[in-house]
Amino acid sequence: MTHRFTLGVASALAAALVSLGAAPRAQAEEGMWTFDEFPSNQVEQALGVRVDRAWLNHLQAASVRLTTGCSGAVVSREGLVLTNHHCLVSCIQALSSAQSDYIREGYFTEARTDERQCPVVQAEILIGITDVTAPILAASAGKFGEDYLSARETAVSEAEKAACAGDPKLRCQVISFYRGGQFKVYRYRKYPDVRLVFAPEFAAAFFGGDLDNFNFPRFDLDVAFLRLYEDGKPAATANFLTWTATPPVAGEAVFVSGNPGLTERQLTVAQLEAQRDVANPINELQRSELRGRLIQFSEQSAENRRIAIDHLFGLENTFKVYYGRQFALLDGQFMEGRRKEESELRARLAADPVLAAEVGDPWREISDVQRVYADQYIFWRQLESGAGGQSDLFRFARTLVRGAIERPKPALLRMPEYADSRLPLLEKALFDNERVEPALEQLYLEFWLAKTREYLGPDAPATIMLMGRESPENLARRLVQGTRLGEPAVRRALWNGGLSAVQASDDPMIQFVLRTDPVSRAARDVWEDEVAGPIERASRRIARVRFAFFGPNLYPDATFSLRLSYGKIAGWNNRGAETGPFTTFDGLFKRATDAEPYRLPPRWTAVKGKLELGTIFNFVTTNDIIGGNSGSPVVNAKGEIIGTAFDGNIHSIVGGFKYDGALNRTVAVSTSAISEALAKVYGRTALLKELEAR
Amino acid sequence: MTHRFTLGVASALAAALVSLGAAPRAQAEEGMWTFDEFPSNQVEQALGVRVDRAWLNHLQAASVRLTTGCSGAVVSREGLVLTNHHCLVSCIQALSSAQSDYIREGYFTEARTDERQCPVVQAEILIGITDVTAPILAASAGKFGEDYLSARETAVSEAEKAACAGDPKLRCQVISFYRGGQFKVYRYRKYPDVRLVFAPEFAAAFFGGDLDNFNFPRFDLDVAFLRLYEDGKPAATANFLTWTATPPVAGEAVFVSGNPGLTERQLTVAQLEAQRDVANPINELQRSELRGRLIQFSEQSAENRRIAIDHLFGLENTFKVYYGRQFALLDGQFMEGRRKEESELRARLAADPVLAAEVGDPWREISDVQRVYADQYIFWRQLESGAGGQSDLFRFARTLVRGAIERPKPALLRMPEYADSRLPLLEKALFDNERVEPALEQLYLEFWLAKTREYLGPDAPATIMLMGRESPENLARRLVQGTRLGEPAVRRALWNGGLSAVQASDDPMIQFVLRTDPVSRAARDVWEDEVAGPIERASRRIARVRFAFFGPNLYPDATFSLRLSYGKIAGWNNRGAETGPFTTFDGLFKRATDAEPYRLPPRWTAVKGKLELGTIFNFVTTNDIIGGNSGSPVVNAKGEIIGTAFDGNIHSIVGGFKYDGALNRTVAVSTSAISEALAKVYGRTALLKELEAR
Repeated sequence: MTHRFTLGVASALAAALVSLGAAPRAQAEEGMWTFDEFPSNQVEQALGVRVDRAWLNHLQAASVRLTTGCSGAVVSREGLVLTNHHCLVSCIQALSSAQSDYIREGYFTEARTDERQCPVVQAEILIGITDVTAPILAASAGKFGEDYLSARETAVSEAEKAACAGDPKLRCQVISFYRGGQFKVYRYRKYPDVRLVFAPEFAAAFFGGDLDNFNFPRFDLDVAFLRLYEDGKPAATANFLTWTATPPVAGEAVFVSGNPGLTERQLTVAQLEAQRDVANPINELQRSELRGRLIQFSEQSAENRRIAIDHLFGLENTFKVYYGRQFALLDGQFMEGRRKEESELRARLAADPVLAAEVGDPWREISDVQRVYADQYIFWRQLESGAGGQSDLFRFARTLVRGAIERPKPALLRMPEYADSRLPLLEKALFDNERVEPALEQLYLEFWLAKTREYLGPDAPATIMLMGRESPENLARRLVQGTRLGEPAVRRALWNGGLSAVQASDDPMIQFVLRTDPVSRAARDVWEDEVAGPIERASRRIARVRFAFFGPNLYPDATFSLRLSYGKIAGWNNRGAETGPFTTFDGLFKRATDAEPYRLPPRWTAVKGKLELGTIFNFVTTNDIIGGNSGSPVVNAKGEIIGTAFDGNIHSIVGGFKYDGALNRTVAVSTSAISEALAKVYGRTALLKELEAR
Repeated sequence: MTHRFTLGVASALAAALVSLGAAPRAQAEEGMWTFDEFPSNQVEQALGVRVDRAWLNHLQAASVRLTTGCSGAVVSREGLVLTNHHCLVSCIQALSSAQSDYIREGYFTEARTDERQCPVVQAEILIGITDVTAPILAASAGKFGEDYLSARETAVSEAEKAACAGDPKLRCQVISFYRGGQFKVYRYRKYPDVRLVFAPEFAAAFFGGDLDNFNFPRFDLDVAFLRLYEDGKPAATANFLTWTATPPVAGEAVFVSGNPGLTERQLTVAQLEAQRDVANPINELQRSELRGRLIQFSEQSAENRRIAIDHLFGLENTFKVYYGRQFALLDGQFMEGRRKEESELRARLAADPVLAAEVGDPWREISDVQRVYADQYIFWRQLESGAGGQSDLFRFARTLVRGAIERPKPALLRMPEYADSRLPLLEKALFDNERVEPALEQLYLEFWLAKTREYLGPDAPATIMLMGRESPENLARRLVQGTRLGEPAVRRALWNGGLSAVQASDDPMIQFVLRTDPVSRAARDVWEDEVAGPIERASRRIARVRFAFFGPNLYPDATFSLRLSYGKIAGWNNRGAETGPFTTFDGLFKRATDAEPYRLPPRWTAVKGKLELGTIFNFVTTNDIIGGNSGSPVVNAKGEIIGTAFDGNIHSIVGGFKYDGALNRTVAVSTSAISEALAKVYGRTALLKELEAR
């Protein structure tokens, strides 16, 4: 006798990928569109609703970017912002201690004075867009490699400085679109002071944990509220989204406004292959080992578990995303589809001799770079881009050392992250009172050092320069135990003291970075000169080809800048298995057990009888979003907020490469569920009242 | 300014792989040849030395297989066997305790009475080979899937039973060659009682640890001695290899006789792709996480470190091998080469209509199976082949439960591992007094349960059947804390009590396996019926094609049975970088630091002044070997033993798929170094005298 098993996650993923290769090129609801080039006609055709400029402007003015990698929405005239719980976990963690664990218990405020500032987080609202493509392209014309990047970066930081004109309430940022094909300055009203208003218990926000992450049906109250402050008072926000507790309806047109972090839909096949064959395997293997270390660490004690919980779930989230992406890249059909698209585009270019002569063969150039990429990736990763692992103390030291060296330099020679226009946010990240956990610092630093030694080899000059004859364990311990960089005042003094103060410091972490930074810089130089620079030069010309042939029917790859996607509320059908668009509170209670991650907080079990169990809790939509969109408002055609997006379904996991309208779904918490929970589970009368005020 | 980095391990690996695709099909020194079909003429042509049947017989009779996955050599007339330290670590561990740590201190004996039995290890010496291809092929002719495998297995176990004719001193095993194309019974003289005689300190045996593993220059005394016992006395072994302390010479012809475990050089491209895209990613990611857990576990306490050390290094070794293999599979050139070879063979078959009609298209059949492979692999892995992770207690329980169910069945319906011919070794593994470490058991079981839930999904019927509503942590704890299967007497009683005793047992591990075994068996049924069976049926016909075209110039893929490889002592040149064939004691002291894994044991540092520092320590040869060959004697043309093979260089890591004579090297410890160390570091006068006796 034989019988077959129902599909698990791995198999469902494999099944999802089957469709990728065969998907049509243009999907009705595909696209992460900029507000200034939003395809309203296309939307009207697809959904039968029309959004006009006023509608767009209102939504833009209520859309929030959180610099820590999330989105949000202004939902009251007093600066109240709705976002996801998982977007604020590190803030909640920073406000917690072994005695007051707000992650476990939730965070609730009775009065404005209870609202506490979230370190590091800055909120930003987009107020203007200006095209600066021409001067930036001109600045780097005719240059190569590192010179090319320096020239481009100098022009970029000049444009940023000019756009803000010294106004300290603004942040101006040049966003690169189409992989270097277009540049625009985004002017933001910034709010460096944001305070936590409400957060539910972790067990309610992340019910189902990593197991249910990217899955649906889902039952998560993944919401948190914070408030924008200005001059120590709640900010006046005339533009806010109207709250509605009307439940979502299947088929309804919906829009998601937020900041998708990164898509790679415009990469060449050679670049995808390099991800598949070089970067992804190394990154996923390292993540997997780190995950094992964090799990074992968490099981050592309740306090370890408390301090590592967010780190672990963040890592598991990333792991799952890249697990899915790698399967897509390993899928022959998918790559075949991309290869076909690419050769069609190249053939079309070849048939246009004028454009072809101007553009050359950028695909070939990118492909040629991949051997250097393969040779240098591990050096760049271990020594520069991923140096220090997730150690905050190392990051502080590097910022202090590099800041001291870079700030006195003229703009053209400075590392771009130390350009004048970038310093305010960088200083906020450096001076804010983050909580540093020495045990985790030890784990991260040791892991980074051990992997560097393993992947580069114990006899590599870079390894010897980093570690000498010390073991990773001992070196990490010596640095973490000896440093005083955990204290904001120490960091501020070193920053203000400049290079002489940094050089005179006997802080071992500072001395470690001072001594080893040259090897990191060298790895970066090679990378920029031989990989990043040549790729951008070539990508820019591929963008040129796409503009020429496809005109304005294009949307740019995601770049953690404000985008709008359109779609509708709908479930999906995967190989005959139908998934409906909604879950309810009733389903939540049915899924609950007495073991984590399915154990409900006592507050919830206590009020089960009072809750409207039919309340729509989570729902799915066809909108095209990706990480960074977390906390994005889901609004209806009237511009009312009906939910907050917090995840995608399992088929959305390959969204970095491809959108498939039949399967890819956004997952959101409904405002109706939020209202019901605030009223009956948490008793947040004042908050509810503020939300419902018109 | 930019500069380039010297190559680390990852880059060296990448460099090694460049040559794979372009390597010629037949390499002078390629091959793991059987003793009954050894190509003496070919060897004479390649090396200029001739080995005759008497030479081969003598070497065969002194070659040892250790059932735990290693090889060895008889080196005295009193049953003394030389093998690798890493082959006996689990034995040394089993003899150790928190009080007496022989892993750290080494194990030394003054008298025969100090020699202690190694649990689980059985030594075997090959005494005869008989071809049984015809009856076995006949038995399964015309059958499919699971029926095909059952019929084949029944014929196999009958052949084994017949060959041994009830002699309890023998073990008879049918070995399948050419992936089911040929079957032979190997008759072994077996030694279930082997005792530990000598083991150096872990830090000397595995100097450089995982970092230097698969690297050269290398400086490891990876040797251990054990003794074969018979009726409680040292076995009389008239056939033994002559010990020589003459140092090895570059260019010298050498032979390695041992038991390579597994090569996959005869897989089809579709099978290689399935490894690359399905099995390897999952396996390496799980290994990587488990590695992280073991590392963090080891850092919790000295005792944790002691009990986990061998587990960790074993895992790291496997991880490194598959890391290299995956890069080979991801290498476009390599796969292109395999694709070309395959299509040439298929074209040649197509040109032979008679054979083609007989054989059909087995490549296509294998390729068609791969979709089922991709769908079912995770179920088969989590529920059947890898069930329980590395938990010994789970393994005991499964053996007891399945043994109780299977043994009463007639041969044709029995799981092959419970065939009569297999029971003696299985009982030894079950009854021997292995040391079970509850903390590690918890870690392994929990990991297995957690990954099963993750990969199959929390709602999969199999997950629910395994775990119900318990968490992996709690379930693992309940099973490990409650079971008494750690006691050999308990296991013996349950085994002897049969199904009624097993069913009546209230042991939670037994009850867990009784309850969940049906789901494991179901996964196995699907796998055998739809994957393993069809693949073997097809592979057998590919073997038929190879025999027809290439005749006896073939060697079979490795199957952990006795093979002989020929080669010479030689370094290698990789992209212009020359590596010589030898290291010396002098190099060892130069590489030593005071941090693990480069810290020398005190015994070594104490005698540095007395040692002949120019002694050749480790050396490399061109022999084609792979895991399972560990402990194989390296012999010269005179048949004298000059070393023990213990590793390959970094380029050998892809040896599972391909041998490249320019780069692939075997790494061995020289007998001259062993003699010098026994004399001056360890003062083992009696042992040395026994080795030198003629």
